[in-house]
Order: sequence, then structure tokens, then C-alpha cells
Amino acid sequence: RFGLGYNEANGDAGGEDTALISRFRLNIDADAYTDGGVQFSARVRLQADDDPEINEQNSATLNGARFSAIYQGFRLDVGNVSGAFDASDAYFGFEPGLEAFTGQYAAVDYDFLEYSSTGSGANAVAAFYTGPNFLVGGSYDPDEVTGNDRWDISAQYTFADAYTLYVGYGENDNDQSLLIGVLTADFDRFTVNAFLGDEDLNLAPGAEDTDGTVYGLSAGFDVGTATQIVASYGSGSGDADTEAYAVGFVHDLGGGVALKGGIGSEGPRNGSSSTVGDLGVLFNF
Amino acid sequence: RFGLGYNEANGDAGGEDTALISRFRLNIDADAYTDGGVQFSARVRLQADDDPEINEQNSATLNGARFSAIYQGFRLDVGNVSGAFDASDAYFGFEPGLEAFTGQYAAVDYDFLEYSSTGSGANAVAAFYTGPNFLVGGSYDPDEVTGNDRWDISAQYTFADAYTLYVGYGENDNDQSLLIGVLTADFDRFTVNAFLGDEDLNLAPGAEDTDGTVYGLSAGFDVGTATQIVASYGSGSGDADTEAYAVGFVHDLGGGVALKGGIGSEGPRNGSSSTVGDLGVLFNF
Amino acid sequence: RFGLGYNEANGDAGGEDTALISRFRLNIDADAYTDGGVQFSARVRLQADDDPEINEQNSATLNGARFSAIYQGFRLDVGNVSGAFDASDAYFGFEPGLEAFTGQYAAVDYDFLEYSSTGSGANAVAAFYTGPNFLVGGSYDPDEVTGNDRWDISAQYTFADAYTLYVGYGENDNDQSLLIGVLTADFDRFTVNAFLGDEDLNLAPGAEDTDGTVYGLSAGFDVGTATQIVASYGSGSGDADTEAYAVGFVHDLGGGVALKGGIGSEGPRNGSSSTVGDLGVLFNF
Repeated sequence: RFGLGYNEANGDAGGEDTALISRFRLNIDADAYTDGGVQFSARVRLQADDDPEINEQNSATLNGARFSAIYQGFRLDVGNVSGAFDASDAYFGFEPGLEAFTGQYAAVDYDFLEYSSTGSGANAVAAFYTGPNFLVGGSYDPDEVTGNDRWDISAQYTFADAYTLYVGYGENDNDQSLLIGVLTADFDRFTVNAFLGDEDLNLAPGAEDTDGTVYGLSAGFDVGTATQIVASYGSGSGDADTEAYAVGFVHDLGGGVALKGGIGSEGPRNGSSSTVGDLGVLFNF
Repeated sequence: RFGLGYNEANGDAGGEDTALISRFRLNIDADAYTDGGVQFSARVRLQADDDPEINEQNSATLNGARFSAIYQGFRLDVGNVSGAFDASDAYFGFEPGLEAFTGQYAAVDYDFLEYSSTGSGANAVAAFYTGPNFLVGGSYDPDEVTGNDRWDISAQYTFADAYTLYVGYGENDNDQSLLIGVLTADFDRFTVNAFLGDEDLNLAPGAEDTDGTVYGLSAGFDVGTATQIVASYGSGSGDADTEAYAVGFVHDLGGGVALKGGIGSEGPRNGSSSTVGDLGVLFNF
Repeated sequence: RFGLGYNEANGDAGGEDTALISRFRLNIDADAYTDGGVQFSARVRLQADDDPEINEQNSATLNGARFSAIYQGFRLDVGNVSGAFDASDAYFGFEPGLEAFTGQYAAVDYDFLEYSSTGSGANAVAAFYTGPNFLVGGSYDPDEVTGNDRWDISAQYTFADAYTLYVGYGENDNDQSLLIGVLTADFDRFTVNAFLGDEDLNLAPGAEDTDGTVYGLSAGFDVGTATQIVASYGSGSGDADTEAYAVGFVHDLGGGVALKGGIGSEGPRNGSSSTVGDLGVLFNF
């Protein structure tokens, strides 16, 4: 994907507010199937990113490998894996912009287990089970270096063919935790996510207040057959929590190519916000 | 490609004059086509090079990505791109040797925008239009870090089915510029390029004189159906300009494999020159 | 491949004794064939490894390239190559465990030319000739930086359809040398290797004694059609030589997937040994 990005805060900080933005991502996947029907997979990702603060780009890099054993609805991931928040579409909702620069989760500060596209990632274990209208999962990431082990679990249930409820919970050995619930309602051309949660960051006295309730909304509306308008809003109860909103669009050009863009605002809830926006082309191959 | 390389100057500098030379280059290309017929492409190059001064080799690396939008004769490149000199065959002419170790451009010192095979490259924009017998192009490379933006433009025209005239011009924010003209004449088995230009490097007082007129010649002659003899000469009017000449051959072994080699001399125009040469096999896959 | 590894010595040294272990290895091969029937090949390996001492994993890396010219039974390798020991199956014998963590060669300390999977490797030359029941090979690795050139040669002969004798010899400019002989006997479901050699490490006075005779045994036994039991033992005459033994198994799950595991003990011959073991899944794709 490539395009133009605008970030007022980068410019204010002495860098460039407008930059050529781009990302090249190639998944290198390998699969093998036992006679008993178990699928073993491995993935390494090759990714090249831009560096928008100085309007330059970086060389492509390889990340840490993820290994999977998959049997019917069950999936075990080992290595550089996604945890129970990161693996969930409901957690992220609709993210406006070519770069999906914000979303309903904007105020969340808890550091849950995420797949790393450009680094070695964790050496963790995650397991997921997908049933006819539900999904459960969990992960455990031992951290030998700092001793800060973390784990998370989630469950998702779809009912009445239109509503999906997701609940996720994670905590780590630093006495931090995150509880998130997302209710998704999916009507014909309109889909909306309501996002509500609570995080306990075990903040040191005098630290910036980013703790407490987090909440957000995101929605998508199909305009005609090839265009979708998306919007998101996220904030939290902490005085220093990030508050962000944005609106964007996706226009399908066919053949795996889409024109995407968005514009919004982000900043501390009780501070000055800055404008962000981008516009460009995303293509899958 | 791999073979043996000889460089007298490396030996004189305390390194190795003879080394096993090699290069592995793999382009990772990705393409998508919109319903409207626009092609979007992305390329990352994986390359492993030798380090002939110590006769060792380096691990393979990935470079910065190039993104392209192509529609009929028009091409837009973004990211790690070639500028209007680098994208032109006429500028380079015939380059003798397995490693194309010299060419008619030997005395050019201006640093124009080039595609980087092993680094992140520029984050620039280049556009080209190819017509029935002409080609125009240009590039712009903003450099936020040092403030030395640069741009270049070129035009090429083929006439009488045998002659091609190329003119390129580039300048940067350091008040440096380069103007190059190349006339190519293509007769049945013999092709010759005449290269003439002028560069203004805005040299500091007392700096080595590498400024002024640059000139060169290169030619290729087909001996039989599978063998070509190539030669090049390049020099300039500056006292410290590089002067280099070489002769080489290419022998096609079929299946994308060619035996290539060359021998020549290079050094400052008013100084001592040293011998360079190589011999080896190039194969495409 | 991925699984669980146990290494008592890592735990004793303040690290982790048990770790998630994994390796992702992808060979990027390129081939071209001349009209005369010569095959030219190049290989770069992409590999991601774990870091079991801290139970984390590393990002994938690219290694140095290997270039080959192959014509009938003759093969010439240039660049990051395997020498005459490294290229031989007989030298390695059966190596128990998912990670092949030990083998009959456990006491060998001589540093012969090896293919590097994660580094740039040597810039060396190796040649091999394979006949109907024999194989000869040799390599030469010039080292310009430290001046420690090294070379090795080997010959292997199969007789009576069941016995294979391998002899390899290597030396370097530091007056170190290694001579190894391996006799392999292959009976229906049972294969055994006897390993005997001598190394001269030109040790400094007072250095730990790892010199002298090296010896070992390894064997494999097929239990049914899909399972093999393997075992190895290696030791040497030096007081500080490593002594290691292990037993393991391989169970084929079909489709290129195998369950592998092993357990053993290793340590200095006259010192305390520690337990090592692993269990996991290997899959080829």
C-alpha cells in the first residue's frame, strides 16, 4: 500500500507533517498435512515500512516465525503469535484511513500480546477453538528476561444472526489487567461496534492518569456496492487517556486494489489534539 | 553470478587483489490489476554480495520497497525508485566485465537518484511516459534530514530506426547539477554510444578538481551469434576526474547463462592508474 | 520444526532449562541450465531460530549465498559452502533428538569448513565427484583476515552393498589437523556407524586438553514401518573432551511431518555431565 499521510503532531515536533507513506508485506507460509489430518504451518513475514517522521523509508525486514498445528476447529500457535485480544476482529472494529491510524480502542494502554510484523515477537503459546457460532481462545507469554509473564483469554458468541458479543480479559505479573467487552450489531448495510472496558495499569504515584474505564464506538456503512464509509471514536476516563475520532472511506477498484483514506483528530483527553489523515491505494496480491 | 575478480588497487591498499566475486539477486514482485486496467506493483530485492577487498562474502539483505502504478505508457514509481539518469540504458551504455566494473560515465561525480539494491533507498517519486519512439521521465527526491532535495528530468528520442538521442538534467539544493547527452547509433552488428556532459559540483575552494566536462564512448560488436565484444572509455576535464577504459566479452551459453569477463584500467586522469579485471558466469532464473 | 527443549546446563547457568524451541528454514534456490547441459544454481537460506537460554526467539535472517556449477557427477560450489566433512552424512551418523543435539562426533573440536545457515559463511571453493559407488571431495577456504587458510579432502567407498567406508582429512595454517574414518554397516532394519579419528589442535601449554583420539558410535533401528529408534555415543582421549550419549526416536506422521524426540547426557569426560532432551514436530514443505 502507498499514499500520502498527514500528521500535525510530527510537524509540530520538528519533523515532517506530510510524508509519502508505504508498506510492503509478504507472508511466507509453509504447510504440511499428516496422514491423520493435522495441518502444520509456519509463517515468516517480510515487511518494509516507511518512516513518516522524516519522510524516508526503511529496508524490508523479516520477523520472528509463527508455528501452528491446526485440527478441525482447533488451532495451536507457538512462537511469534497473536494473543486473545490481537486475534479478535471485534476488538479492533472499523479503523479509518489507509493506515488504519486509529480505532475504538484508542484509549487502551495495556500492553497485551501482539503478533510482531517487524520484530522477533514473543515466544508464546496461543490456542483457539472455533465452533459453529462461537470462538474461544487464550494465550500465555512467558517473559524470562524481565519476569513479566502475561496471559489472556477471550470468548465470542454470535446470536440472532446479527449480534456478536466479545469478551476478553488479560493480565500480567506487574499487576496490570484489561477487561474488554464489544457488542457488534450487523444490519444489512450498516454495522456498528460498541466497545467498553476497564484497565488497571498499577500506575506509580504521580504517573499520568491513563487508567480506568475505556470506551469507544465504530461503524461502517456501505454506500453502493463498492464504497464503504467508516468512522470510529475512542476515549477513556483517565485524565491523560488518548481521545481520538476519525472518519474514512474504502472504495474498491477491483482486482484486490482499493482506494482508502481518512481524516481525524487525536490527542490527550484533557489536552490539545492534532489532525491526522491519509489517502492512498491498498493492494493485495 | 560468480567468478574471479582482480583489482590492483585493493592489493596496493593492503587488501586482496584477487577475490572470488559473487552476487545473488532475487526480485520479489507483487502485482494487482484494477477493473479499470491500472496495474499496481511492488518490489523488494533480496541480494547477497561479496566483499572483494577481504575476499569474503556478506549475508543476503533486503532493500527498501518500490511501489508502482502503471497505466498504458505511463508509470509512477514511489519509494526506493530510479531517477531519470538511473532508469536510462543510454546513460550506462556498454559496461565491460562480469561486474560491469566501469563504463562511459566513469568521470561523473554528481550523486543522482539511484535505486538501492541493498539499502533502504530514497523515499522519492518518479514518473515516466513511453511513447512510440520517445520516452520522457523525471523524479523528485525530498531529503528531510539534510535538506538536500534533488530532482532530475530526461527525454529520449529514436529516429531513422538507428539513432537514439538521450538528454538528462538533474540538480540538487546544494547548487550541484549534471547535464548529459548520449547519442546511440545502432548498425546491424555494431552499436556505439557517444557520451558528453557537464557537471557543476559547487566545489569548496581547495577541493580536488572533479568538475567540468565529462565525456566517454562505449561500443558493442556481435561476433557470431552468441558472442559480443564490448568496450568503454570515460574521462573528464577535471584534474582529479576518474579516467577509465576497459574491454570485455559476453558469451551466451544458453538457458539464461552467460560467460562474461573484462579487463581495463582506472585511476585519476592525472595520476597513476591501476588494472582491474574479472571473469565469471552470470545466470538469470 | 517446533517443540519443547530441556537443557540442564542452561538452567544451572542462570537461564532457562526448559524452552519452547523452534526453527523455520526456507531455501531460496535458483537454477539455470546451459545448452551444453551444465546446471548453475544459487541458494540463499532464510532461517528463524529460537534462543533457548532465555526462552525467546529471534527474527528470521538471510545467510550468505552459495553458487554451484553441476555437470553429471561433478559439482563445484563457491561462496558459503560445505567442506568435505560437513558435506558427508557418514561424519554425522545418527543424531538423536528434534534438534539433533548430539552425535558420534561429540568430542571433535577442530573447526572445519561448514555451511552457515544464519551467517555469511566462508567465501570458499569446494568440489565433489560422485561415481557409481564412491564419492570424493575437497574444499579450500582462504581467510584473508586472520591468515588462517584451511582445506580438507575426503573419499567414500561402498562395498558388498552393505558397508561404506568414509575417510576425511583437513588441516589449517594454525598447524591444526583432523583425520576421521567412519565405517557404516547397513543391515535390513539396523544401521550402525563406527567413528574413529585423531585431531591435533596445536594447543598452547596449559590449555585444556581436548586433543588426541576421538571416537564414537551411532545406530538406528527401524521399529515397524513408521518409527525409528536412534542412539549415539561420542568421546575422546583428551581429559577435557566432551563425552555425550543420547537415545531418541523418529515417528513418521505422513505428509512430511514427523514426531521426534531424544534424551541424553553431555559434559566434559572427566567432569560433571548434565541432562539434555527435547520433543517436538518436524515438518518439511
